[in-house]
Amino acid sequence: MPEKTDVILGVDLGGTSLRAAALDRRNRILAVEKTPTQSGVAAAGLIKDIAANARNAVAAAGVPWTRVRAICAGVPGAVDSEHGIVYKAPNLGWENVRLAGKLESILSVPVFVENDVNAGTMAEYMLGAGKGMRNMIGIFVGTGIGGGLIFEGKLHEGYRGAAGEIGHMVLERNGPRCGCGKKGCVEALASRTAMERDVRTAIRHGAKSVVTEIMKERKRTRMTSSVIMRALAKRDPLMLQVMKRAQYHLGILVANLINTLDPEAVVIGGGIAERLAEAFVAPIRKTAWEYLLRQDGRERIKILPGILGDNAGALGAALLARRHLGQN
Amino acid sequence: MPEKTDVILGVDLGGTSLRAAALDRRNRILAVEKTPTQSGVAAAGLIKDIAANARNAVAAAGVPWTRVRAICAGVPGAVDSEHGIVYKAPNLGWENVRLAGKLESILSVPVFVENDVNAGTMAEYMLGAGKGMRNMIGIFVGTGIGGGLIFEGKLHEGYRGAAGEIGHMVLERNGPRCGCGKKGCVEALASRTAMERDVRTAIRHGAKSVVTEIMKERKRTRMTSSVIMRALAKRDPLMLQVMKRAQYHLGILVANLINTLDPEAVVIGGGIAERLAEAFVAPIRKTAWEYLLRQDGRERIKILPGILGDNAGALGAALLARRHLGQN
Repeated sequence: MPEKTDVILGVDLGGTSLRAAALDRRNRILAVEKTPTQSGVAAAGLIKDIAANARNAVAAAGVPWTRVRAICAGVPGAVDSEHGIVYKAPNLGWENVRLAGKLESILSVPVFVENDVNAGTMAEYMLGAGKGMRNMIGIFVGTGIGGGLIFEGKLHEGYRGAAGEIGHMVLERNGPRCGCGKKGCVEALASRTAMERDVRTAIRHGAKSVVTEIMKERKRTRMTSSVIMRALAKRDPLMLQVMKRAQYHLGILVANLINTLDPEAVVIGGGIAERLAEAFVAPIRKTAWEYLLRQDGRERIKILPGILGDNAGALGAALLARRHLGQN
Repeated sequence: MPEKTDVILGVDLGGTSLRAAALDRRNRILAVEKTPTQSGVAAAGLIKDIAANARNAVAAAGVPWTRVRAICAGVPGAVDSEHGIVYKAPNLGWENVRLAGKLESILSVPVFVENDVNAGTMAEYMLGAGKGMRNMIGIFVGTGIGGGLIFEGKLHEGYRGAAGEIGHMVLERNGPRCGCGKKGCVEALASRTAMERDVRTAIRHGAKSVVTEIMKERKRTRMTSSVIMRALAKRDPLMLQVMKRAQYHLGILVANLINTLDPEAVVIGGGIAERLAEAFVAPIRKTAWEYLLRQDGRERIKILPGILGDNAGALGAALLARRHLGQN
């Protein structure tokens, strides 16, 4: 490797796996390493796994560890990025974990901590569907719904670092109960969790669907993206109907965001969005357009599927590490 | 006047009156002039009135016209601020009016055009309730509901100049029909127009209320802010109930905005908000807090009534004129 090959590492702490991406100075991807996580492991155990996975990524890139300039971890939860603390990450069972400090003491490089959705948004903005734009909203649809905001080329993290919680935008005041305790949040109307709830309820009430069968075949206890894809491929009427309703609500969410922020692009990522791509986004775009107050130039606002897939979080975390170093 | 007294003028084109504010270099208010407008007047007539009112404000300030550096008009509608064109202003009956060009040919000074709510937000940010903050959302509740966004000290106008249309955020998918044609926009749930609709419907269905009587006494055909104030002062049960419902919906709007943008402050202006002040905002704050996903540090986010009253639009327009001159 040439001497100038400084490396930055981005780490994505998913619910079921860890991912680390090593980027060179020009943001070229040198390596991506993935390792499964066990649920119910204490923070200390997971932190060791993060460190090991990070070392593997750097080894796979063929770069000596001394070339690593910084690491940033994207965490599914609320973080204090200034102090490198994970304030609350329900899916990891973490509260007030001093992640940056702990990783630094193991790895001896500067470590930063960011929200995973902000990281994913940053990646789509710099390297993905939003490349070349200055104002972009990222929406990630999975077990929950999260968002990231880029204004004038900068990530908008908010006064408390709490910006982007668009999954808890209320769209239907008396709608279904959300995990957060409120009613009618878009997360309770259009996330994969909401879709699974609707499918299960309908089946319990006698609706016919291939979903149960597919889950048995694939030994899945949850309605994962791949189960959804399979059911849609079989034109399962229940799945088609539930998907249509979720897309409709996502369309209203997108319209609410465009009416408020008038961005240049809205990029929709997450498992289903990236697998279905334009087929997922087209009905969302149609509803969003109908709900826009200002119809002039609406086609200039791009509503696009994300293109970085499951690597978005790790790549974005690396980009944010660079930003923390002031190289951006 | 000292030789250095350059003046900037802000003009507010309201539905029932015109207002012009003259500011000196230090943003001190030298004069505010107001004149009523006749409805149904053609654009040319109103433009002449704007020019006359602007001249009166400068005369009242005791400054020669040659000291006026720029004028900015705040317009209730969609504008192309780059070209000084009013794209669409339903309350004025205007479409594609080249306002800047026409005023310039009469007044011989540079004229800029901005949205009136953006102007009002700018005023509260620079001179009013949001003074000293860097990230602020302005919400103006009147016949409609409009918003303005300040991020990092700058007005966020959006990619098409269409940002801030928060009145058309859908909060209740199958809610009451909005003037825009959609259902369940917050404007159809919590504007003065929505409150008037609810009061009239209830009275038609036999509810007792002093509102009809107050409107007769005051010779009003609409339920204006002053009618609302009077009914509230008399503890009219219907008015209290309708107001409470509007505040509840505004609380959800504020929560949706904070969950998305995490600003430092939300300033709520407009006739009712400024007259009732904290009594109007307190229930909104209570609901907003309940609906926040991130509860940590919620009391650090200020939710405040505006303090500039009916002058906000004209003052903000003047500040935006200065910004257009690059003095900001």
